[in-house]
Amino acid sequence: MIQQYSSALLERAVDEFAKLPGVGRKTAMRLVLHLLRLDVGKIDTFTQAVSTLCHNVHYCHVCHNISDEDTCQICASPSRDKSQICVVENVQDVMAIEQTQQYRGLYHVLGGVISPMDGIGPHQLEIDSLVDRVDSGGIKEIIFALSSTMEGDATSFYISRKLKPFPDVMLTVLSRGMSINDELQYTDEVTLGRSLANRVPFTGM
Amino acid sequence: MIQQYSSALLERAVDEFAKLPGVGRKTAMRLVLHLLRLDVGKIDTFTQAVSTLCHNVHYCHVCHNISDEDTCQICASPSRDKSQICVVENVQDVMAIEQTQQYRGLYHVLGGVISPMDGIGPHQLEIDSLVDRVDSGGIKEIIFALSSTMEGDATSFYISRKLKPFPDVMLTVLSRGMSINDELQYTDEVTLGRSLANRVPFTGM
Repeated sequence: MIQQYSSALLERAVDEFAKLPGVGRKTAMRLVLHLLRLDVGKIDTFTQAVSTLCHNVHYCHVCHNISDEDTCQICASPSRDKSQICVVENVQDVMAIEQTQQYRGLYHVLGGVISPMDGIGPHQLEIDSLVDRVDSGGIKEIIFALSSTMEGDATSFYISRKLKPFPDVMLTVLSRGMSINDELQYTDEVTLGRSLANRVPFTGM
Repeated sequence: MIQQYSSALLERAVDEFAKLPGVGRKTAMRLVLHLLRLDVGKIDTFTQAVSTLCHNVHYCHVCHNISDEDTCQICASPSRDKSQICVVENVQDVMAIEQTQQYRGLYHVLGGVISPMDGIGPHQLEIDSLVDRVDSGGIKEIIFALSSTMEGDATSFYISRKLKPFPDVMLTVLSRGMSINDELQYTDEVTLGRSLANRVPFTGM
């Protein structure tokens, strides 16, 4: 019987693409055949962009966000409020919050949440470095902006215990409730219950 | 305002992934962050597999399938029936037919179908080289295995006209009808009509 792929090089490239998350072998084949139709120059641009990033990536030594320098633009910016730290799970969360254009403080990227099921304990996360930042002074507020899951809540709780020695630092958490434009009847009961319990004064919006 | 990406290198890699078909910016970001979590060695394996393929790819000079040699394994195999040529649109189609394990002849990869809407005319396809293969003799049957679309049908028709000078070569086309395991009531009317018109003697399966 003839092997599935007519070219070992093709098979190797498809294998590599199929290792990416959410990419099956058929999608991998489609992507590789797309690349094959491009000029060799464009392929080089593609592989070099990936390679350059992975060989030269920096993480900000303050907040652990991905950066081109040792200190990221947000931490280095004189216009950001250095007394606020927003604690997030990953780099995408920083981007999501930046896109709201509602936050002018700094960040702290944990690199995940505590999840014993996945073998992730507090020491694999950037929790000690957060405590060090608070310890070095000048911080007025820590905003927990983690996922609204058991793991996210447990992580916020763990960090709040670690921050016990700093009673002057205010700890806050993102509000939870109905999403904007949600219809009440389709909101799940836990969210609706939380929304009701955490109701706020009506200001006429 | 801070730019969307905290790193220009990150943005460049995401840009490159987002150029792939069916990959949006969010997916591209997810793929790039996945790669960033890997060892640098694995990244190099990934980029080298892509690069090596695209720099060293060969197309079989007989059937135009992707190959590591000038003649592909199928065309070079002594056990294949060299009097049959199955005409397909692309490399994936060869793989699909090989996987049925029902075909022992050769292939001819056109590289697409005639599609004036996409600016693809007969001369961008490997049609002349197919006529040359037939002209050089020894071919008994051409099997049209193109997509069951207007473009596929038009391409088969165009090629059949080009093969008029070879009346001894039998032209066949894949049968069309209900898919195996399809329920009759859910089969579309055109397919069902074609299935009825092309009914075959009942052999008790």
